[in-house]
Amino acid sequence: MQRIVLIGYGNVGIHLYKAFKNSAFAKIIQVYNHRAESLQELAEEMDTTTSLAELKAADIYIVSIPDSVTEQTVNKLAGYHSLVVHTAGSIPLLHSNTGNGVFYPLQTFSKNTPLDFSKVPLCIEADSAENLELLRKLAESITSKVYEVSTEQRKSLHLSAVFACNFTNHLYSLAEAICDKNKLPFEILHPLIQETARKIEFDSPKNSQTGPAIRNDAKTIAFHLKQLDSPELKEIYTLLTKSIQDRNGY
Amino acid sequence: MQRIVLIGYGNVGIHLYKAFKNSAFAKIIQVYNHRAESLQELAEEMDTTTSLAELKAADIYIVSIPDSVTEQTVNKLAGYHSLVVHTAGSIPLLHSNTGNGVFYPLQTFSKNTPLDFSKVPLCIEADSAENLELLRKLAESITSKVYEVSTEQRKSLHLSAVFACNFTNHLYSLAEAICDKNKLPFEILHPLIQETARKIEFDSPKNSQTGPAIRNDAKTIAFHLKQLDSPELKEIYTLLTKSIQDRNGY
Repeated sequence: MQRIVLIGYGNVGIHLYKAFKNSAFAKIIQVYNHRAESLQELAEEMDTTTSLAELKAADIYIVSIPDSVTEQTVNKLAGYHSLVVHTAGSIPLLHSNTGNGVFYPLQTFSKNTPLDFSKVPLCIEADSAENLELLRKLAESITSKVYEVSTEQRKSLHLSAVFACNFTNHLYSLAEAICDKNKLPFEILHPLIQETARKIEFDSPKNSQTGPAIRNDAKTIAFHLKQLDSPELKEIYTLLTKSIQDRNGY
Repeated sequence: MQRIVLIGYGNVGIHLYKAFKNSAFAKIIQVYNHRAESLQELAEEMDTTTSLAELKAADIYIVSIPDSVTEQTVNKLAGYHSLVVHTAGSIPLLHSNTGNGVFYPLQTFSKNTPLDFSKVPLCIEADSAENLELLRKLAESITSKVYEVSTEQRKSLHLSAVFACNFTNHLYSLAEAICDKNKLPFEILHPLIQETARKIEFDSPKNSQTGPAIRNDAKTIAFHLKQLDSPELKEIYTLLTKSIQDRNGY
């Protein structure tokens, strides 16, 4: 069994901790967190510490803390002669005096929402073929979805996630605002939203585009623009309609 | 049992036909379709016709055909002295010489994708309290999600669905294009996309917005804009970021 010290017990750390309980390849032997309060419950079943000076010797250190302190913390672990990985999507592969790697789970985590980790994509990167192999085994012991992703690719992945998730969620908010204004419960749209997200598994979203823009239905588009009274919503409607049409050769 | 004649056997008609097989309140006694080919298989188990002149007497006629021919077809059914309903989101409640109503399932349907109809929202509207009650019983016999929605509200619903589904799906396409360009499989993003859609059931999307815009993370935003080389993507990124920030009081 590989011994892991988990550094950071926030949204990601908590889910990693749970996931490694079922790993046959590695086990967590200690959890560090800056704030003692977050460790209170955990301390009943696990060695915990709030001091980096008290870390145990281990094979792998997983650093899952805020971006702003990740690099300095990785550097502080240089004395351990082990593999040190971080879980941050937007931080490059670092180079300290240890082995280095990235162990980035691409999912949105909430402390209190249960999640099936075996379906979470894990993006791995390492400073040597040997460390990459170790990370692959580590990742495969908790999920079926493991991807080797370079620092450059990870940057693009982070950017595409802004479109696919952050902006998408904002469009849900705008739809909810339109519903609220017209005394419609937003929940009427839930099944349609979820089916739209489900469909990407069966076909490229480019092939399953529907709606007035792709039909080039000028009458409905004009009618919708008339219905929208806010300049902000009109501008978003116009720009996204144009983008759909441009990308489909109108 | 209420007797239904189903007029139109396209994407919506096929799923309604299947759903009514399990209804304890109404049964379909005949299916009309303009094209004979679409009825071939069905003819083995059901009375079918391609002629509106051959329709049977029934309690309810459900008209589920293209928008462009819906009104004229509803008018042709005026002699039946029954309740005639259409399934179109963007057509108002019509007024012919029969009872009239709307029976609008808000979902995206594909002929060959199985769908659990009991979770599809049905929006109903009718020209009398009595007909509305009949439609409610009809709807409740095939789904647990029945909403009384006026013609005006249905227009807003259609508009908000463009934001929540058509535009959302386009953002998935843009994310896929960014992935393709960087040799990343789009499937890495599938779980994140689906979790984003699932989360709306637990909290308003306004409350669960994440990403650089809501964090007001100017450094990441500038970096993303630099990464995007297409003016179209830059413009969409800028506009949606501004919309997120404006709506959150930045």
